[in-house]
Amino acid sequence: MNVVDIINKKRKKQELTTEEISYVIKNYVDKKIPDYQMSALLMAIALNGMNERETVDLTTSMLHSGNQIDLRMIPGIKLDKHSTGGVGDKTTLILAPIVAATGINVAKMSGRGLGFTGGTIDKLESIPGFKTALTFDQFTKQISHIHVAVASGTKNLVPADKMMYALRDVTGTVESIPLIAASIMSKKLASGADKFVIDVKVGNGALMKNLEDAKKLAHLMVHIGRIHQKETICVLTNMNQPLGSAIGNALEVQESMDVLQGKGPMDITQLAIVLAIQMVRLGKNISEEEATEEVRKVLMTGMAYEKFKEWIQIQHGDLGKLTVSSKIVSIKSKQNGVISHIDTERLGELTRQLGAGRYTKEDVIDPTVGIKIEKKIGEFVISDEELAKVYVGEKDINVNDILECFTISEHFFDNEPLILDIIKD
Amino acid sequence: MNVVDIINKKRKKQELTTEEISYVIKNYVDKKIPDYQMSALLMAIALNGMNERETVDLTTSMLHSGNQIDLRMIPGIKLDKHSTGGVGDKTTLILAPIVAATGINVAKMSGRGLGFTGGTIDKLESIPGFKTALTFDQFTKQISHIHVAVASGTKNLVPADKMMYALRDVTGTVESIPLIAASIMSKKLASGADKFVIDVKVGNGALMKNLEDAKKLAHLMVHIGRIHQKETICVLTNMNQPLGSAIGNALEVQESMDVLQGKGPMDITQLAIVLAIQMVRLGKNISEEEATEEVRKVLMTGMAYEKFKEWIQIQHGDLGKLTVSSKIVSIKSKQNGVISHIDTERLGELTRQLGAGRYTKEDVIDPTVGIKIEKKIGEFVISDEELAKVYVGEKDINVNDILECFTISEHFFDNEPLILDIIKD
Repeated sequence: MNVVDIINKKRKKQELTTEEISYVIKNYVDKKIPDYQMSALLMAIALNGMNERETVDLTTSMLHSGNQIDLRMIPGIKLDKHSTGGVGDKTTLILAPIVAATGINVAKMSGRGLGFTGGTIDKLESIPGFKTALTFDQFTKQISHIHVAVASGTKNLVPADKMMYALRDVTGTVESIPLIAASIMSKKLASGADKFVIDVKVGNGALMKNLEDAKKLAHLMVHIGRIHQKETICVLTNMNQPLGSAIGNALEVQESMDVLQGKGPMDITQLAIVLAIQMVRLGKNISEEEATEEVRKVLMTGMAYEKFKEWIQIQHGDLGKLTVSSKIVSIKSKQNGVISHIDTERLGELTRQLGAGRYTKEDVIDPTVGIKIEKKIGEFVISDEELAKVYVGEKDINVNDILECFTISEHFFDNEPLILDIIKD
Repeated sequence: MNVVDIINKKRKKQELTTEEISYVIKNYVDKKIPDYQMSALLMAIALNGMNERETVDLTTSMLHSGNQIDLRMIPGIKLDKHSTGGVGDKTTLILAPIVAATGINVAKMSGRGLGFTGGTIDKLESIPGFKTALTFDQFTKQISHIHVAVASGTKNLVPADKMMYALRDVTGTVESIPLIAASIMSKKLASGADKFVIDVKVGNGALMKNLEDAKKLAHLMVHIGRIHQKETICVLTNMNQPLGSAIGNALEVQESMDVLQGKGPMDITQLAIVLAIQMVRLGKNISEEEATEEVRKVLMTGMAYEKFKEWIQIQHGDLGKLTVSSKIVSIKSKQNGVISHIDTERLGELTRQLGAGRYTKEDVIDPTVGIKIEKKIGEFVISDEELAKVYVGEKDINVNDILECFTISEHFFDNEPLILDIIKD
């Protein structure tokens, strides 16, 4: 077998065999296929696609490129949740305690972010003392004990994905439905959980810019899960504005606690509930109505919030010491009208410039900085009224750049729904 | 400007600006853009194409990546000829003396081959003593004196093409009309000649597998020439069987001399005449009829063959010492019938295995080995009659592999024309 022949096949839009896909992944991980050949193949895949069978084979080959976590010693079904990533997305912090409070195991290996704000691990580490570097024994024991643990990723889990993602990032091959599906599902399958709920973001702040592509991705991931006998549900959600109000690490932890106490922004609350219902449904094999009732109960009784505090405490976090910057700059509207558009991607980028996210792996995150949005799409605003608060640290940004992220229209604006679709097969 | 943005643009099938194309070529040659980004861009170009303007810009950027030869001190029009490469293609050896004998300057910088057999330089070097490493002064003086010189390529002529071609070769991005056009034309433009005749091969032994693609490539190259005010003519020729009978370096020199003496195979003779007519037409600004008469004259009177001997002698070659291997294996047909197909590419590959071509730059060519075809498409053959002679050296090949390159049919087979089209605009 020869990699140039395989690249040529895909350039000619031909189907690659199971053996050819496995050959490429194995030899790329072994560094026998150089980056320049892999990037040419990835571009050919991005442009000429892969069918369902090829995508399943790619996922399986990637999965087998490294270790897989075995959680079978934990009794009961283990659930994992994934989000394709969005600005202000703190749902894991909210979901995990809700679902755990219903008695289902939430086992999540998470990563540090290289995006606009930190990943879930970075958000949790904004709580002073919080430990994410759990040993495997600590991780499984904690799940058995309180039904929830979030730990930073084990080494050598899907090395093929780490290498391929780094390459795709710098070769214009990120936007490819089969490559995204294989990347997400290989990591989920390696994580050892039994069932998955995946939040697929759609919109100007997301990887999937339109609903049609998001649906294709979702069906593909559900299919890959089924082949591996791990039931998967995808929830397609709107990402045309930041989720909730807070963008930034400690700010997002604060907002998560607000949501768990029933006083958070409506959109993020709704999203957390919808995702939690799907997880509970899967975890207990019950109807959506029954799952809804369970979720409602743990939220209304405060059990979910108690579970959150229990979880943070067991991983040594001290919520009393959580701090956000006290240097706050107010961004005010210069006109009257209705918010018709928020440039989510740019707002995320500005938050990163403030120090809330990383540009390189070596960057150190400032957990106290961020942006809090006071007006969202569809809301009325009058001149001089506050649009956003900026929590500034050592790095400063141009206030006008934030103002420009908000488009204010003269007419009433009909907001889009948050939940666009739920894909189960 | 950012290379990832440029790759993404081309992935989305958008047009690249002049500045973007120039940025990529300059920074790739300066090694600021790594191979893995360049190969992703090349694959995006191979799949999404480039329009005429982009291809012209790519050619110009590549041309400016290195030195250009200035031949203005040689009086009169300088002609250059190029072939997209084919098995058994020794036309330069025949054409150059024909055209020079009519008084037109033939200035050719040629390369060593990395293909099935050597390049023109390797073929010439099979003549003992022949010197191809001419100084620039020797090169121009020889042209002024006898109207013909063929020298091995000067260093740093279109380094962008050298780098890009090496990368394309290993990343499945060779087959792309704009990339092929820019590669050929940037090298021709840098070579300093005033006008070009390009032999575009079409068929199973060629880069262009069908006539439609070959025509596109030809029109594009004629256009690029026109933009640079260098008139270019493309002759589209059939490459469904080896040209002439001889494949291998010294064997091809022998056959070239046969053609110049009017006793060579018909197809290669016809091709050399057609290309020579176009070169003479361009070089003297005369009609095709007048050019045909000039070519006929220098061939019939032996002036072309005398020019060949003069040229070889001035570059220190001793034709009396030209040798081919005396170890000859005869390949015989096992059936009666008509030759309906010859697997040209495979036959070329087998000649390389014999030692006539290189696999890596370091390989040393054996000039004495090769294959001589005794029966071509359309010819009758009876059982036990000779199909080919194999001139064996130190490396041996399986005789059956050669036999398998010939398809023998029971029915009369209508051969295809050799000259498919001549493209001038």
